[in-house]
Amino acid sequence: MPELRYDPIRPRWVVIATERALRPQDYKRQRQQVKKPDNCPFCYGHEHMTPPEVFAIGPADRKPNTPGWRVRVVPNKYPALRIEGELKREGIGIFDVTTGIGAHEVIIETPDHFKHPDAFSDEEARDWLIAVRERMLDLQKDKRFRYILFFRNHGAEAGASLSHPHSQLIATPIIPPVVVSELNNAKNHFHLKERCIFCDLIKQELLLKDRVVYDDEHYLVWEPFASSFPFETWILPKRHLHDFTRLNDDELLILGRTIRDTLKRIKIALDDPPYNMILHTAPTPHLRPARTYYWETIEYDYHWHIEIIPRMTRIAGFEWGAGLHINPTPPEEAARYLREVQL
Amino acid sequence: MPELRYDPIRPRWVVIATERALRPQDYKRQRQQVKKPDNCPFCYGHEHMTPPEVFAIGPADRKPNTPGWRVRVVPNKYPALRIEGELKREGIGIFDVTTGIGAHEVIIETPDHFKHPDAFSDEEARDWLIAVRERMLDLQKDKRFRYILFFRNHGAEAGASLSHPHSQLIATPIIPPVVVSELNNAKNHFHLKERCIFCDLIKQELLLKDRVVYDDEHYLVWEPFASSFPFETWILPKRHLHDFTRLNDDELLILGRTIRDTLKRIKIALDDPPYNMILHTAPTPHLRPARTYYWETIEYDYHWHIEIIPRMTRIAGFEWGAGLHINPTPPEEAARYLREVQL
Repeated sequence: MPELRYDPIRPRWVVIATERALRPQDYKRQRQQVKKPDNCPFCYGHEHMTPPEVFAIGPADRKPNTPGWRVRVVPNKYPALRIEGELKREGIGIFDVTTGIGAHEVIIETPDHFKHPDAFSDEEARDWLIAVRERMLDLQKDKRFRYILFFRNHGAEAGASLSHPHSQLIATPIIPPVVVSELNNAKNHFHLKERCIFCDLIKQELLLKDRVVYDDEHYLVWEPFASSFPFETWILPKRHLHDFTRLNDDELLILGRTIRDTLKRIKIALDDPPYNMILHTAPTPHLRPARTYYWETIEYDYHWHIEIIPRMTRIAGFEWGAGLHINPTPPEEAARYLREVQL
Repeated sequence: MPELRYDPIRPRWVVIATERALRPQDYKRQRQQVKKPDNCPFCYGHEHMTPPEVFAIGPADRKPNTPGWRVRVVPNKYPALRIEGELKREGIGIFDVTTGIGAHEVIIETPDHFKHPDAFSDEEARDWLIAVRERMLDLQKDKRFRYILFFRNHGAEAGASLSHPHSQLIATPIIPPVVVSELNNAKNHFHLKERCIFCDLIKQELLLKDRVVYDDEHYLVWEPFASSFPFETWILPKRHLHDFTRLNDDELLILGRTIRDTLKRIKIALDDPPYNMILHTAPTPHLRPARTYYWETIEYDYHWHIEIIPRMTRIAGFEWGAGLHINPTPPEEAARYLREVQL
């Protein structure tokens, strides 16, 4: 069973993979990517190479784990956290351990081995996001989970070990540290001002304009004022809403189109860079009775959004040791490059 | 002038390089390393290729910026922060900006282009650390600086752009986020227990032993219980002390030997991996009158130490987006591999 361990010094949770522990010589091998369709577990006809699917979108008469699907969700064959077992929290002297209970699922976004979201049709993008929403809603029913994290790694340098278009969901029994910090911060702002910090931000940035990549009735595509990474790009919904899973199919179509166009801009401007895309949304709602801390005003103070980090720079000692990022491209310049892209 | 910008959402400071902004096409070029001595600015006879030195160890009759030095410190030619100018703090609507005042220096550790600290003699290691201490003491006199960060990037993948053995110092007008979190946490522990959290940790880990790589009278070399990275290694002094700069030359000789042996272990066990080494020590002492928050009990609650992070894994979306690291080698296993190395 993997473990979640709490660092009493820094202080934060870390997932420690206690089974199948990697030895020093294993790390190089790990970096290879499966690049060809003939041995790709995510291509049509290879459905037996993955654990049985938990969700799919396709024709009504299709049998599970056979070709014909448009989007397919399967448990990760090498999960960071395990679905089976009891959630136990214990102490070892000054240390804290929680059993590594969780879920780790893979959303196979398309049967096409070479078609990434930047090239999706509106409907393909929508169906991908519907699969994400449906799995999040289902995983949220499990009372052991406190957060469901949706993310996409693109390219080997961004951590993708398979090149077939896919994204991932990880359900965790703790709220991840970066999210805790964002939630606390948004709540503090609300307590001071009775306004959402994200709504404040959107209003100001639409006036100043120099960090805006794109905006329409629904979304602001934006380079953060204090971007930690060059060309870091956020997709912010203009409508205040704390929880991504509340979006209906029509709204997901609009979001899908916005994500597609943003990824296309980044691909063109930066020559198909590796990137990480992450959804920030509210924790699972059943925290409400147990820990009212996050939930008492979350409908007012939190605002879901998507963060995209192209991996242009190597992260050096200064960043890790101090948490102080050095960004060599000001967001105003980055916004200009991305704005000028012809879609 | 570079800027320090405060992220109102996450919340943390970021350095934005506003001059010489990198364009999309500049990033690939940036990754090349200067590998040969003939065009290396840090080799003997090339002293004119760096800004004039600010410190050196060598024969008494040596002229500055000529060969003969054993350790040489120069300002970074491409500094992340600038030494000239006034420290100004201002607001832009909901955002905060501070002028990017600071210092960025390079410690050229040896004239030998190919000799890294893992191969230093005791005296070479000591002299390297004396240069670090002297520069830190000097930079601490500048009242604009709140923190002096010492770090070493080894290998291109860890962010080193020159292969000649060198480490760096960055003085910042803010306390970096990871340090703030560690300082606050150590202080909270002290307020609760009137004990240093690091001293507690050392005591427990010497009893449990399974994460100990090496220990002697002076130092514990240790794999953290909640290591964020595989083979992450800390060097913890057994004697409680908050501030690295208080060490005398004899103490630096012992520390230098311990760092040398630890880096050698890592080099042998992991086949000369890229790594980042970071010193965590107290902020600059003249914070005391301005902000008593960190300093009122810092002599009791904080404990300087060194963190070494071999760069074995790629950092994916999950880590960036959630701050939740997945470590595929438990620290107990890592400690066993490193313990077994024959030095």
